[in-house]
Order: sequence, then structure tokens, then C-alpha cells
Amino acid sequence: MPTNKQVLLAARPKGEVKESDFRIVDVELPTLADGEVRVQNHFLSLDPYMRGRMDDAKSYAASVKLGELMTGGAVGEVVESKNPKFAKGDRVLSMAGWQQYAQNDGRGMQKIDTRVLPISVYLGCVGMPGVTAWYGLKQIGMPKSGETVVVSAASGAVGSVVGQLAKSLGCRAVGVAGGKEKCDYVVKELGFDACVDYKAGNLDADLMAAAPSGIDIYFDNVGGAVLDAVLRQLNAFARIPLCGLISGYSATEAYPLRNYRALLVNRVNLQGFIVSEHMEFWPQALQELGSAVAGGRIKYRESVAQGLENAPKAFMGMLKGENFGKQLVKLV
Amino acid sequence: MPTNKQVLLAARPKGEVKESDFRIVDVELPTLADGEVRVQNHFLSLDPYMRGRMDDAKSYAASVKLGELMTGGAVGEVVESKNPKFAKGDRVLSMAGWQQYAQNDGRGMQKIDTRVLPISVYLGCVGMPGVTAWYGLKQIGMPKSGETVVVSAASGAVGSVVGQLAKSLGCRAVGVAGGKEKCDYVVKELGFDACVDYKAGNLDADLMAAAPSGIDIYFDNVGGAVLDAVLRQLNAFARIPLCGLISGYSATEAYPLRNYRALLVNRVNLQGFIVSEHMEFWPQALQELGSAVAGGRIKYRESVAQGLENAPKAFMGMLKGENFGKQLVKLV
Repeated sequence: MPTNKQVLLAARPKGEVKESDFRIVDVELPTLADGEVRVQNHFLSLDPYMRGRMDDAKSYAASVKLGELMTGGAVGEVVESKNPKFAKGDRVLSMAGWQQYAQNDGRGMQKIDTRVLPISVYLGCVGMPGVTAWYGLKQIGMPKSGETVVVSAASGAVGSVVGQLAKSLGCRAVGVAGGKEKCDYVVKELGFDACVDYKAGNLDADLMAAAPSGIDIYFDNVGGAVLDAVLRQLNAFARIPLCGLISGYSATEAYPLRNYRALLVNRVNLQGFIVSEHMEFWPQALQELGSAVAGGRIKYRESVAQGLENAPKAFMGMLKGENFGKQLVKLV
Repeated sequence: MPTNKQVLLAARPKGEVKESDFRIVDVELPTLADGEVRVQNHFLSLDPYMRGRMDDAKSYAASVKLGELMTGGAVGEVVESKNPKFAKGDRVLSMAGWQQYAQNDGRGMQKIDTRVLPISVYLGCVGMPGVTAWYGLKQIGMPKSGETVVVSAASGAVGSVVGQLAKSLGCRAVGVAGGKEKCDYVVKELGFDACVDYKAGNLDADLMAAAPSGIDIYFDNVGGAVLDAVLRQLNAFARIPLCGLISGYSATEAYPLRNYRALLVNRVNLQGFIVSEHMEFWPQALQELGSAVAGGRIKYRESVAQGLENAPKAFMGMLKGENFGKQLVKLV
């Protein structure tokens, strides 16, 4: 019987997440019952939304309880099956959580095709982050050719897809990212028109130079000071798909937003969203994203931590922007 | 030839508006040319949006230039006409500005029917403020029976209509207003379910008591601390028609909004709007509002200043909430 390493929530973070907020345990996997399937996870996905699940504050999803398995998506391979719907060797995506093995009756497990695309992209640009970008930009942002789209966390799993989709729709794509290396990547590798380094200390002027015709769509992943700066430069009838507020996830005090008057002056539409509430769009989005990635029209980058025991540290780094592209944990 | 008293913009306000920001002049009306019509205004409308026109900051409408007539709607009576479309005695609504007489080729003058409704309501609940309430609540708020609607500046021209419409649609209507007298009026006269006195110093708790099932729609006229408090108590999928931010119009420094995280957590839709950009809804809105007012289903109250020379003071008072209901200036 293999043992299953798991990462549990040990404590609710106060401010920044610490390693002691997690506990790593080894549990023995029970014998596979009839109808069950056992998956060995190859990659675990780390995503900013997980920070919210660690709190017990009201949010859009239930908190992880203390002592419970951290929640999260993973991709892996069926290693044993007593369920006729799954065969040994099948590749599957599921909300397995932070653990090496997932074992259940197959509910929520989705087969994925890894003949063309590498398995990890189903956690990134052809998975939840990609669909988040697709839905927020297309369904909320409703971009028109010639408009300027700004996206924060531009080198990340969501932001990188937002900008590349915006370009494909004839928009000017402007990223906001932390540091020259990420900004260079966003422009030179991903093909954005410009990228503003928010750490360079010149946010307002740099943003104005990058978006000289003003901002029509701001896809927000971070909130805080970047949001405040963008508000100053919105055009009339701008749209803000509000996807995340990572800059505030570990803050003990909320950033005081000052320029919200711009929401009225510019008759802005701001829409907070979570992509799992819009499942009806997933098939179309995944089809488009899959073919764009396979065709090389959407590029991506991954930060891969090795081994489940390094998941907490990788997660903490991601919340500070230390990752570069989609943050994964390689489990085998 | 009658003289025409006018109120001009003399200076751009710094912080709170002062009387010296206005200049009152008497000008001689030119002889009526062929095709022209002369209207003696009976009532001038004072509205919060005019504060924005006094600044030269970017806003949704052009600023009033220094030395120019203050902008504003008025209702009056045709006293002389050389235009076949208007006869002496016709009652008209127009963007006459802050002056006793309006004289032009009839462009923008709209005949109104004062057989059933008093002339002043065309500046209030059967005019721009009423349509603002109707559009923001119905087209953006999209209220469903049983939902809780909160509106700030609840005893004002817009807020009072929002709450009464919300009640007629089966919603719980909760007002926010300044002082016991206004709150009593909102509940006892207008029929709101509850009204929170934001000056009572207990905003969070009072709001929670008034909206025990949370807030589904927040029709915002004021921004600032009331908005921040409401954000804390939004329900999932709440809507915020953002109509005005009067609490900040005279502030030299913006109120620091802290609870905007609620916009994401609750997947809120916030929409800034200005009703003059949605003219396609005015006929239906005015028809519904007119019949509701005529039938006594929408009640209203007016604060009436006497004489054009008192318009600046009345306007300054309105920005501080000293008015009670629709602020008008009676000119004859």
C-alpha cells in the first residue's frame, strides 16, 4: 500500500503566510473499493485564490477547515481503477488537493488528452487560469479592436493569457508586472505592446506612457496601488473584470483606495467574478485556448517547485510574486 | 425690455463652494428674433451634478467656463413667441441655466403638461432625478422581489424615488439619510422599511439591523464612509448603481475606501452611470413616474429657495445635506 503525503492547513495565517501554517503528513491509502479509482498526481497547481480559503472570513468559497487537506487542482495518472469509466494510464484533472494521490469514486475527475499538449497546461493556460482570462476578458471586458487592455500580474498564469488574447483581438495589450525581467518577458516573449514595472517607482507616468490613449479595459488581479493608478487613467465606459486582489491577500490592513470617483466619472462597469460560476463557457474557452496553445499562438511559462514538501514555500513565494508564470509543484 | 438676472461662475471652488464662487448679473434681453421663443422660468433645479461642472477636472460633462452662466434645468412659461411651435402660455422644461429668462430658437425646450401635475415635479420625480432613480434601480439594479435595496441620500430627489420604486417591486427598502427628521420622513411618509441615520455614529450596526438579510442592491448617491459601510454587508451577486459621490464633491482629499475587496468576494456588479446617456429609457420612465406621482404612489418633498439671488446659498446648503427633498429655486 503506498503512503500518501498530504499538506494540511495547520493554522489560519495572520498577515503573511508562514510555513508553520501548514502541516505535512503521511497517511496510508485505503484499499481501493469497487467503483473507485486511484490517481497519482503529477502536478499540483498553486493559485492565489487558495489564500482566501485559508481564512475563515466570508469569501466566495468555503474555507478549508483547520487540520484539513489544502484545496487545489492537480493533474495525474490513473494507477489503479475499479471504476469502468477509468483505465490505468488515463490522465485526469481533478480538485485533488495538496496530496500525492487522489482516490475516490471518480466524481470530479476529468480525463485529459496529453497527446498534443503537455499535462501541466491543464492547470494553466488550458485550465482554470486560462478560462479565467478568457471569461473575464471576453465576457466582461468585451474588447473591441483598437482598445487598450491593461492587465496586472501580467507574467502570471492568468495575466499572460489575458494579454495574448487581447492582442489576438486587435487590442493594445499593456501588462503590469514586478521587475525588469518579467516585463521584458511580457513584451518580448508574449508579444504585449508594453509592460509597466510597478516596482520601478514611477507607476503613474509609466502607465501613461504605456497606455497613451487611456485604458478601456483593466483586468485586475492585484488591487491596491496598481488599481488606484489605473483608475486615474480610465477612459469613458471602461470595464474592469475584477479577478483577484493578490496585493491585499496577506495585508493586515486594507489598502485605502482613493480614485474610485473615476468609476462614476467614466461610467465604468466593474464586475467581480469567479470562473467556476460560469461553467457554461468552459467548453468553448478550453477549445479555443487548447488550439491556441497547440498552435503556438499562446505562449506560457511555468515555475515548478519539486516535491510536495516544497508546496508551502512555493505558495508563499507566489503570493509575493516570486514565481514567474504559472506556479506548479511537480510531485513525481 | 425685461432685464434678465443670471448667476455666473466667478471662480472655481477650492474645497467647499463659497458665495464668492458665483457672480450675479443683470443683463438686458435682446429683442426676440424671428423663430425665437422667450421663457420666463418659474423654478430652477439645483442638483449635485452641478458641483462637478464648477471644476475643470475631467468629468462626464464639459465644465462651465469662468464667467459663464451656471448650467441647470428649469421649468417656466412661454411669455413671447415668434416660433410657430410654441405659443404664449405654453409650459416648458429646458436646460435654461441659472437665469430668470431663457431665450433661443426653441431648441431643447420641451412642452410639459401641468394640468394634472404641478410644474415643479418635472424637475424632480417626473424629471431628471426621477428617471435617474428609475434607470439606476431597474436597468442596473435589476431588483427581484424579496431583495434588499439600500439607497443613500434617501430623502433626496433621487433617493426618495429609488426607495418607493423598490417597495413597489416587492423589495425591502432601506434608506440612509442624515438626521432623525429625514429618517422619520423616509419611513413614515415615503414608506421605506427602515432608514439609517448616518450621523448617529453607529453606521455598521444600524445598517445591519436595517438590512438583516444583507444588501442586494446599493444605489449610491454619496460614496465615502457610507459606501465603505455598505460594502461590508453586501450579499453575493450584489449590484451597485453608482449615481453620485456627493460626500466627496467638496473634499480636497478623497475618502480612502477600504472594503472594495467585497466587490470581488461577492462578485458584485458596479456600474457608474449618467442618465442623460440613456435617453431611450426616458419616455417609459417618465410615463411610469408621472402616473405614479399623479396616483399618489410616489410621494415627494421639495425645499424651495426664494429668488435667483438665493440660488448659490441654496446650492451650498444642498451639498451639505441641508435641503429636505428636491432642492428648487422659485423665480417668480
